[in-house]
Amino acid sequence: MEAFSDGVFAIAITILVLELSVPEADGDLLGAILDQWPSYLAYLVSFATVGAVWLKHSSITEMVEAADQAFLRLNLLLLMAVSFLPFPTTLMAENLTSDEGAERVAVTFYGVVLLVISLLLAALWRYAVSEGLVDGSSSEESRRDMTRAVTPSLGFYAAAIAVGLVAPALAVIGMLLGSLALSVPAGAIRRAVRPGA
Amino acid sequence: MEAFSDGVFAIAITILVLELSVPEADGDLLGAILDQWPSYLAYLVSFATVGAVWLKHSSITEMVEAADQAFLRLNLLLLMAVSFLPFPTTLMAENLTSDEGAERVAVTFYGVVLLVISLLLAALWRYAVSEGLVDGSSSEESRRDMTRAVTPSLGFYAAAIAVGLVAPALAVIGMLLGSLALSVPAGAIRRAVRPGA
Amino acid sequence: MEAFSDGVFAIAITILVLELSVPEADGDLLGAILDQWPSYLAYLVSFATVGAVWLKHSSITEMVEAADQAFLRLNLLLLMAVSFLPFPTTLMAENLTSDEGAERVAVTFYGVVLLVISLLLAALWRYAVSEGLVDGSSSEESRRDMTRAVTPSLGFYAAAIAVGLVAPALAVIGMLLGSLALSVPAGAIRRAVRPGA
Amino acid sequence: MEAFSDGVFAIAITILVLELSVPEADGDLLGAILDQWPSYLAYLVSFATVGAVWLKHSSITEMVEAADQAFLRLNLLLLMAVSFLPFPTTLMAENLTSDEGAERVAVTFYGVVLLVISLLLAALWRYAVSEGLVDGSSSEESRRDMTRAVTPSLGFYAAAIAVGLVAPALAVIGMLLGSLALSVPAGAIRRAVRPGA
Repeated sequence: MEAFSDGVFAIAITILVLELSVPEADGDLLGAILDQWPSYLAYLVSFATVGAVWLKHSSITEMVEAADQAFLRLNLLLLMAVSFLPFPTTLMAENLTSDEGAERVAVTFYGVVLLVISLLLAALWRYAVSEGLVDGSSSEESRRDMTRAVTPSLGFYAAAIAVGLVAPALAVIGMLLGSLALSVPAGAIRRAVRPGA
Repeated sequence: MEAFSDGVFAIAITILVLELSVPEADGDLLGAILDQWPSYLAYLVSFATVGAVWLKHSSITEMVEAADQAFLRLNLLLLMAVSFLPFPTTLMAENLTSDEGAERVAVTFYGVVLLVISLLLAALWRYAVSEGLVDGSSSEESRRDMTRAVTPSLGFYAAAIAVGLVAPALAVIGMLLGSLALSVPAGAIRRAVRPGA
Repeated sequence: MEAFSDGVFAIAITILVLELSVPEADGDLLGAILDQWPSYLAYLVSFATVGAVWLKHSSITEMVEAADQAFLRLNLLLLMAVSFLPFPTTLMAENLTSDEGAERVAVTFYGVVLLVISLLLAALWRYAVSEGLVDGSSSEESRRDMTRAVTPSLGFYAAAIAVGLVAPALAVIGMLLGSLALSVPAGAIRRAVRPGA
Repeated sequence: MEAFSDGVFAIAITILVLELSVPEADGDLLGAILDQWPSYLAYLVSFATVGAVWLKHSSITEMVEAADQAFLRLNLLLLMAVSFLPFPTTLMAENLTSDEGAERVAVTFYGVVLLVISLLLAALWRYAVSEGLVDGSSSEESRRDMTRAVTPSLGFYAAAIAVGLVAPALAVIGMLLGSLALSVPAGAIRRAVRPGA
């Protein structure tokens, strides 16, 4: 399962680049490249998200001793959401800076997909904990760390979707923050909150 | 062989998303996104199929002790059918809700490819059993479970192709059921039929 | 090195499907699908070739104990030729059944790439043998088998290129035979020639 | 981490071929194929670069005993730069031999991406050394070899970018040399400089 999941993450993160269309060179190529900033921003947020989800997914599969059939299927759902991401990424890239209505729809759609990915990741972890699939040798603390680590980005994504209804470009920054929050190592949050721990 | 097969499954399932073309935003982007429901349906059925075939394929390669040359070639045939799937998927997505004749051709073609995948998976398993490639430590029961698990979806796909000649959209639902049938764990079918076992 | 090589083979074989363009449905979809037979033929030959090369490559890396720096670089050259294959495949698919001059150019180009792949595979094996990289426990006979197994397809491809100058479509059949020749297990050739061995 | 990184390298190197667009066959197909030399050159440089970076990356991950969280993130940055490469590759391929301004922009952009990849690779190695992540059993000499091996290409790429401002096509040759420099085995540089060592 790990090889297959790693493969899907690796492919999804690498084909994001196919979304970037090469601008026509009619005189000012540099200007044309710079005008594509929405594409680069979308690429960056999606890359950061898939990267962060992969980091957490790796930690989870490392801590999980034995996967049961439901875990495998929940994992497939997560992989479906992740491998679907290039579509809303392109959609958002092509509609940022377009008319306001389309921009709002595209950013909201993108944000919802990020939220779903994040929810499925959290669900996968919670299922593993509740069904006792997690390696017995892992400490109670490291499990709580992981639960705490997969939770904050949910808030970021939910907030970003709400913000996106009034200020789409700002919302994308929020989604980038959500991905960065998700990429923080599990133990680091606790140490930041309780420096003495 | 497992790494290569896992790689092909992972790539085939991830590049399905490239089939989804981003709609032009002329006014109503939300409407344009929703109008693409045939694409999402085709994506969903193909993803579910490749996922289910991968789950069964993993179980089979786990139970198979040593692959012979014919098994390797039969496996390549299966991988060819699986990696061909994005083509009929796009074909069906673009012809659902088009004129009736084209719709029927596209759905039938898609169904035949699903049936071929399903037949090759069943053939791979039966070959492994008949040639004694299956690990001796696996119980007679677990082998019968696997045989029973790869069989029902054949019926679903065959029925869906027949239905597709008169009601294409309904047939796609049948194919989705076929994939779900294929994704049921091998042992679960017996336990459902004989709850006491 | 094996994981990376397997990955490149798996991706190259799977993205071949992206070459198949979905025909426009203007009335007769079935006819439009059937008219694309050059694409299916090209897909089939390329899939068979990459599959056969991968089978042989797996056997070679299995027999090679330790790769040196030159072996790694020769292997990269082979991977470059293999991952380049989707380009001549599309080129040939789009020019079969077109005007005679273009058809001949496309088939020759395709054949030359197949020949280069085949040459690099044979070179990789011969280098491994001559530098003593092959596992000492493998018998002299199994090495000779491998040498014999990577050689015949060279002849098929060379002959197919020559034939292609006068009869392009026939040449493609020759290339398919070349791939099938390459996919014959190493030991089977000797056993066929000397049934008693 | 190695499986995921190998996967990204394998995919990035294989999808480079998607950049090559099949020329229209209007009469002279051979001429049309030859006219695409900028695409083949770009493909070659990018393939050589990703191949060389992968070779060095493999050696580094082999020498690194345990990755810490910062190493994993630095690695993700490197993978982002590598998987971004198909975009500037296509950009350069389409603008070489076009008007001088566009050509210069495209080659400079491409060179900067190669330089960034090279810098991130060097940074990854230096970080591993400075944080003591490198396997204790590796000799002081082999570490110095690696440091020396990841450095020269930085110079090649920087020089190529400067040259590119006046002679774009010449600069691409410089970048090819940079990739070849990067692909030289770590120990070979020392042995070349001090033949007796």
